[in-house]
Amino acid sequence: MGVVVQHIARAEQSVIDRLAACGVATVHEAQGRKGLLASYMRPIHPGARLAASAVTISAPPGDNWMVHVAIEQLKPGDVLLLAPTSPCEDGYFGDLLATSAQARGCRGLIIDAGVRDIADLRAMNFPVWSKAVFAQGTVKETLGSVNVTVVCAGALVNPGDVIVADDDGVCVVRREEAESVAGKAEARVAAEEAKRVRLAAGELGLDIYKMRERLAEKGLKYV
Amino acid sequence: MGVVVQHIARAEQSVIDRLAACGVATVHEAQGRKGLLASYMRPIHPGARLAASAVTISAPPGDNWMVHVAIEQLKPGDVLLLAPTSPCEDGYFGDLLATSAQARGCRGLIIDAGVRDIADLRAMNFPVWSKAVFAQGTVKETLGSVNVTVVCAGALVNPGDVIVADDDGVCVVRREEAESVAGKAEARVAAEEAKRVRLAAGELGLDIYKMRERLAEKGLKYV
Amino acid sequence: MGVVVQHIARAEQSVIDRLAACGVATVHEAQGRKGLLASYMRPIHPGARLAASAVTISAPPGDNWMVHVAIEQLKPGDVLLLAPTSPCEDGYFGDLLATSAQARGCRGLIIDAGVRDIADLRAMNFPVWSKAVFAQGTVKETLGSVNVTVVCAGALVNPGDVIVADDDGVCVVRREEAESVAGKAEARVAAEEAKRVRLAAGELGLDIYKMRERLAEKGLKYV
Amino acid sequence: MGVVVQHIARAEQSVIDRLAACGVATVHEAQGRKGLLASYMRPIHPGARLAASAVTISAPPGDNWMVHVAIEQLKPGDVLLLAPTSPCEDGYFGDLLATSAQARGCRGLIIDAGVRDIADLRAMNFPVWSKAVFAQGTVKETLGSVNVTVVCAGALVNPGDVIVADDDGVCVVRREEAESVAGKAEARVAAEEAKRVRLAAGELGLDIYKMRERLAEKGLKYV
Amino acid sequence: MGVVVQHIARAEQSVIDRLAACGVATVHEAQGRKGLLASYMRPIHPGARLAASAVTISAPPGDNWMVHVAIEQLKPGDVLLLAPTSPCEDGYFGDLLATSAQARGCRGLIIDAGVRDIADLRAMNFPVWSKAVFAQGTVKETLGSVNVTVVCAGALVNPGDVIVADDDGVCVVRREEAESVAGKAEARVAAEEAKRVRLAAGELGLDIYKMRERLAEKGLKYV
Amino acid sequence: MGVVVQHIARAEQSVIDRLAACGVATVHEAQGRKGLLASYMRPIHPGARLAASAVTISAPPGDNWMVHVAIEQLKPGDVLLLAPTSPCEDGYFGDLLATSAQARGCRGLIIDAGVRDIADLRAMNFPVWSKAVFAQGTVKETLGSVNVTVVCAGALVNPGDVIVADDDGVCVVRREEAESVAGKAEARVAAEEAKRVRLAAGELGLDIYKMRERLAEKGLKYV
Repeated sequence: MGVVVQHIARAEQSVIDRLAACGVATVHEAQGRKGLLASYMRPIHPGARLAASAVTISAPPGDNWMVHVAIEQLKPGDVLLLAPTSPCEDGYFGDLLATSAQARGCRGLIIDAGVRDIADLRAMNFPVWSKAVFAQGTVKETLGSVNVTVVCAGALVNPGDVIVADDDGVCVVRREEAESVAGKAEARVAAEEAKRVRLAAGELGLDIYKMRERLAEKGLKYV
Repeated sequence: MGVVVQHIARAEQSVIDRLAACGVATVHEAQGRKGLLASYMRPIHPGARLAASAVTISAPPGDNWMVHVAIEQLKPGDVLLLAPTSPCEDGYFGDLLATSAQARGCRGLIIDAGVRDIADLRAMNFPVWSKAVFAQGTVKETLGSVNVTVVCAGALVNPGDVIVADDDGVCVVRREEAESVAGKAEARVAAEEAKRVRLAAGELGLDIYKMRERLAEKGLKYV
Repeated sequence: MGVVVQHIARAEQSVIDRLAACGVATVHEAQGRKGLLASYMRPIHPGARLAASAVTISAPPGDNWMVHVAIEQLKPGDVLLLAPTSPCEDGYFGDLLATSAQARGCRGLIIDAGVRDIADLRAMNFPVWSKAVFAQGTVKETLGSVNVTVVCAGALVNPGDVIVADDDGVCVVRREEAESVAGKAEARVAAEEAKRVRLAAGELGLDIYKMRERLAEKGLKYV
Repeated sequence: MGVVVQHIARAEQSVIDRLAACGVATVHEAQGRKGLLASYMRPIHPGARLAASAVTISAPPGDNWMVHVAIEQLKPGDVLLLAPTSPCEDGYFGDLLATSAQARGCRGLIIDAGVRDIADLRAMNFPVWSKAVFAQGTVKETLGSVNVTVVCAGALVNPGDVIVADDDGVCVVRREEAESVAGKAEARVAAEEAKRVRLAAGELGLDIYKMRERLAEKGLKYV
Repeated sequence: MGVVVQHIARAEQSVIDRLAACGVATVHEAQGRKGLLASYMRPIHPGARLAASAVTISAPPGDNWMVHVAIEQLKPGDVLLLAPTSPCEDGYFGDLLATSAQARGCRGLIIDAGVRDIADLRAMNFPVWSKAVFAQGTVKETLGSVNVTVVCAGALVNPGDVIVADDDGVCVVRREEAESVAGKAEARVAAEEAKRVRLAAGELGLDIYKMRERLAEKGLKYV
Repeated sequence: MGVVVQHIARAEQSVIDRLAACGVATVHEAQGRKGLLASYMRPIHPGARLAASAVTISAPPGDNWMVHVAIEQLKPGDVLLLAPTSPCEDGYFGDLLATSAQARGCRGLIIDAGVRDIADLRAMNFPVWSKAVFAQGTVKETLGSVNVTVVCAGALVNPGDVIVADDDGVCVVRREEAESVAGKAEARVAAEEAKRVRLAAGELGLDIYKMRERLAEKGLKYV
């Protein structure tokens, strides 16, 4: 506790943008079904979508002091990601912090806790994925850390990892795997496109994926 | 486990359409306050509304193999309804399966588990009522059954029962009661319309429903 | 149980309107971070916003009889606030009751339970903050009380207290503190505006709030 | 609603006793992994164990009138099973009802709601599996039904089905399958005993169940 | 925030002892089914039982400083009751605080948050009713208040109110109503004793409470 | 997925034993309030207590195949720790697996999912901390991994890390920090002993910890 790491490595912006284009479900599949945050992490406004490098915050329950510290560490294109050290739904973040973060080029917030002023955040087009919406205020009394490894909503996140978030939730991609995952995700998108055409034409997955034989072997009975 | 029932009886389309017009709350009242699925079953996009015959799926946790099997059993106008054999929030269903189901005439999905690709599903106008939105993928390793009786979100559903769903949630109507429920529901709609006019004019329910005497008998005191 | 208080004091409308303009998060801070209802109280349609005097209802689980009684006690500009005597998610309130309440000038409903007909309520522009959306019907068999002090979603509410609600949730302001809270809230809005300008220009909260020295004293280390 | 079925078929006592001896986990496996009630159904005192024929109760939320009606329908060796028509944690049942039920030969209670007076129930050796312990009282105003089919904690239960309950939870066995399930469960117990001896001696499941080849085929890598 | 009320009125010890003898469920009924804390408030060891005057604590999330302040305000026979200002499960209280409280004559703790060192607390025979068991530590940075009115687990508690707690949960009795409630509760105990004897002899509640006629009027059908 | 790491480093047994003696709450404090698993991880029988090196399992939802694989990797004195790849409460583990694990010297199980046969496990004196007790069976169809880093109930666990568990919950200590944490924990135990004596004699924490001045500075008012 009480450490701010000032220099972190980030993935290349072009790679991050490729991940953004693929979306959470595809990226999650492409990296072997890992990296998802818990399903309770929901966007405060539908349709939001981002990929960005994580500036991580480990914060005490009900204390948002470290958010101010973290904002100074942002580079344009980053996303703030906050994990409380014990479960908490307080509103750590509102429109003033969003104004400050946005002024530093921040693309959004991932928070395993609460957020408030969400009508303003929507108007500012500042996307947030959170555990709760709650106006409960916080104090500024106890230190946490910035840019350390955290567990956020059940997922391990290192500073500089790439966060992909959309209406399906939030997924983390290791910085060092970002390029290879982007490649695999794009390949999935391409492959899915071909399947979509066949499925839309009425072909069945049972046939396209050649499932009938294996289902019969397992003992599926049609009556 | 491991059974696919290929021929199920369905209610008449005209009856199903009449139920769709009445909506969940009215249909639920009309059939004696039974058949509601749990309140955690929520639409992925507001304003969606359907009534359709259920093709039911009993699926193992985290395994969506049976969805492919079920899609072959769909007739135009049906809805898929999936109940996992133990509680699960994984994303059994996404845009490819929706494309396939929609190509077969499927009107939507009711799932006591998770769904993903919800931005795509919204764009496709494919309505879903689910327990969760979660990008977590599933496997295709273990058999379940299609068109068997299931308990879905606390309600018993037989294949061919009529599912009514809207912003208020999801209600099941027994196939063999569908016509009589439709009649009662339409009667309620008509009766409510008359009451709505009186209430909108400022008359009180206390007077319209003649409640004052019974309240006094029970001992209500005005101070 | 079984008491209806017919005359309650209300805050002045001008004060109520000033609270409405400030919003939940600001009002909550202005009165010393008290009075918030639990975070599970969510608006049924985004963007809703109100401030109004509470007509309170204490109701048995699954019994909405007292809502009819309470509607007679409404004055234009009031909000209904219902707390069940034990936890319940049933749909106590729908479009007919909303029609009646709206005809009496009611501005909305706060309910630590369920609501239904929400598509209609949205169309009527009748805002509701609730614990659940659930079509489950209720009975009219057991007395409760109207305009008594209740605990609603964890917060104490007296009849005539001012309820402020928006996308961030719901907050209660004591009637007798309403004017002083409105003043403090407006002062916060003004102060925040100045800070917003500085933050938007890229100044850091660390500097504006002079936090650097205290962080160093507490032992924060930059590495 | 409002129906009491007075004559129900029950499984033979000797079959019920054989199921009791096998316990929940074994019976559940023996009947193909079906019939479990939700995991939130927990015994109020550890070590309790029963098998018995279900006298079912469908009751309104917060109303225990039907429990009195159901007690008259009990035969010695039965268990009461209560499912509320909408979710409720109120304490429907306490020591007086248990005294009455026990006097009629009732072996215990399964309730998808709350129970109270649990210290007394423990002293009376009256076992209960419930969703909650809650002293909240109930009323006697609205009818329900006795000995109708219900969904209890996610499982379908017909009157006369056999309920098996122990520290692992609660499982329902169809009356007409009770004998065959008892046979299969006893076979499992016998087979498990042989395996237990080998496992206790240090042999591995990998070898006893010949899993190594299939694991290798699926691609498991030892590093 | 930041206030310690040093002098509070308490109920007479003899009255408190009479309430203790009656237990939670009976006291709750005797005072008109009000005053129960939420069902998630559970004893850390079964069989615990107390009645005592509440010394109340309003504490920030994750900050137990005020517990030290409150202990000084204890009189022999009191119980500590802590409500956090926003939901929190941290372990505010452990064996050292219990040692200190017990030395001042404290009978136990009611906490709408977490507790730790529960094996030690059991050994010390110091009863606790809590929302959670959690070893997560707390800080001592932010003021709260002692002996102010709080909402604890959904119930309003004034300092000096009588807390009754046992295996069924926790109930609060207003100090000024304590004597009258004790009388009514004792009357219930006496009345229940007579009924228990009749019920144990096999008489039915249907007859004792003369329910048959009213059930028939409501339309109950025996088939 | 699909990897078994056969050789992992473990802390020295003497260090592990020292951590066991200190218990969860003290160890958690000694290492700077980190490493706690979520509060929903509860022991299946009270009074259990262990410290041991973790053999970790990453398993698919509802599939316990990897438990068999993991048991072969156990060394005497280890504990199994299972994290599902998506949330699941199924009963992955029962008495046969416990027999096998115990035969290999396993001290217990930590599982962020369900467990069954708990009466047998209690009789065998095999301690388990789990998210749920649930008899729901699992399949053996899909690979997971053994002895990889996992997130279990919100905490990061590496294979070979030391798990400390007791009635307060579960805490993980990094293998490489185990010795230093043991030292700090023992120092806390010693320091607490001295304080306990003073507190038991009636001295106040306010005085022992010299809090009065700082409370006054923060503005605490005695009235």
